Amino acid sequence: MLINGIPGDQVPLSDRGLQYGDGLFETLAVINGQPGLWQRHMARLSRGEQVLGFPPSDKQLLKQEALSLCACHERAVLKIILTRGSGGRGYRPPLSTDPRRILTLHPWPEYPHEWFAKGIRLGICHTRVSLNRQLAGLKHLNRLEQVLARSEWQDPAIAESLMLDDRERVISGTQSNLFMIQGETILTPDLSQAGISGVVRELVIEQAEQLALPVQITDLVLDDFQQADALFVTNSLMGICPVAILDQRRFNIEKIPQRLHQTVAEILRSAL
Amino acid sequence: MLINGIPGDQVPLSDRGLQYGDGLFETLAVINGQPGLWQRHMARLSRGEQVLGFPPSDKQLLKQEALSLCACHERAVLKIILTRGSGGRGYRPPLSTDPRRILTLHPWPEYPHEWFAKGIRLGICHTRVSLNRQLAGLKHLNRLEQVLARSEWQDPAIAESLMLDDRERVISGTQSNLFMIQGETILTPDLSQAGISGVVRELVIEQAEQLALPVQITDLVLDDFQQADALFVTNSLMGICPVAILDQRRFNIEKIPQRLHQTVAEILRSAL
Repeated sequence: MLINGIPGDQVPLSDRGLQYGDGLFETLAVINGQPGLWQRHMARLSRGEQVLGFPPSDKQLLKQEALSLCACHERAVLKIILTRGSGGRGYRPPLSTDPRRILTLHPWPEYPHEWFAKGIRLGICHTRVSLNRQLAGLKHLNRLEQVLARSEWQDPAIAESLMLDDRERVISGTQSNLFMIQGETILTPDLSQAGISGVVRELVIEQAEQLALPVQITDLVLDDFQQADALFVTNSLMGICPVAILDQRRFNIEKIPQRLHQTVAEILRSAL
Repeated sequence: MLINGIPGDQVPLSDRGLQYGDGLFETLAVINGQPGLWQRHMARLSRGEQVLGFPPSDKQLLKQEALSLCACHERAVLKIILTRGSGGRGYRPPLSTDPRRILTLHPWPEYPHEWFAKGIRLGICHTRVSLNRQLAGLKHLNRLEQVLARSEWQDPAIAESLMLDDRERVISGTQSNLFMIQGETILTPDLSQAGISGVVRELVIEQAEQLALPVQITDLVLDDFQQADALFVTNSLMGICPVAILDQRRFNIEKIPQRLHQTVAEILRSAL
């Protein structure tokens, strides 16, 4: 664990991340000592810094610290938290912001092999995602909705659950982005008003376009997902994970374009 | 500063308040060593504990700790933070929640005397409040919207600014609740979908009803506020603070019912 480059495992109570969720984070897959999709994670972090009014962090320094922490770890999870640093009481940010960067390394989650071979089962959350154009897409520290959503089920047979906004649009899983296949087209929810724009989601969209597979980023409701030919979820740790069941409906995971799946998996394995 | 009853000024990185904003807080006015409106603050904290799935905290213990911290302080601010405690990586709450309670004492903010004598000037924020029925009313730690809203202005002549939701309803100030007077009626925004249900707001509504002043809790838009006879804002520290100017419009602070203002001020002074 590194806090501003120094080994440590505590933050002062005055940290605005604790006080108000005033900060950002990234969760990276570590493979052979390398944090995966580094550039993409840093690009999202930079967008967040801009919206929150943080000075841009030194990404070279962050990379050095990340590498020192990840060294000798074949498989691990690197979490980077960037808070607005310490401040006084009250919402008003200090005039001069000195963000606090926190790097922690965590064990690799051993997802069951069948999830990837046969597909996962998805539930549907009661907890709704709220809409906020300004914060949409960012991975900020205000994640109470995801916490409440993830606390809705304990059944280990359900790997993930869908979250809707209050206008009945499906936005995401509690910790993943969503894709559906309809004929030749790949569709994924528009995240301009809610949700987190995942780095693997971005990669999937780009690679699909490279493979000349039609992609639509649009508003989708539950019925769209239930009528789809196939579904998959994405996140930094799982990569692409096919869906076998949503509610009562079964999906044929063979309908997920193999070339797309393989290309993305290769990029993730090579930790680019 | 007390963390679970023990003097300290740091929390572990694993605290879910820091990781996800997974917690609640209360800000209390301390008068002559007593934290004001204790029962009301505890009632809101309890509602939050219920929604977040925390075990109910020991309010007697919390009171003891609060009193020990506030002793000998004529005027101060007590902040109580309750997080879900420490947990592993991932949104899923630990099966057995052991919340962390954090009590800190802060200097009393010396608001200018004219604010109360002549009324404050209100601005209007660009940052919107997002809607979430489940979390509405609670004082939880996901406060990035308020932080962004409060960072919109530096002009000390503007004491507070209004926040709207994405359906153009006025919800609150960045750190206060709002009231308007229209003829004989006192109106305040409905907070069933967004905003924080303030303890002084609650007190004002109750006292108005006791004084047989008609109160409406309803949806209000900016135009309603601009057309009002008078406006005031409330929070735990300011109590009732009259508004002199919103945008270009001036208000007559004499139109705020004096009996209501005095009754509430007396209750706050006696720190009930």
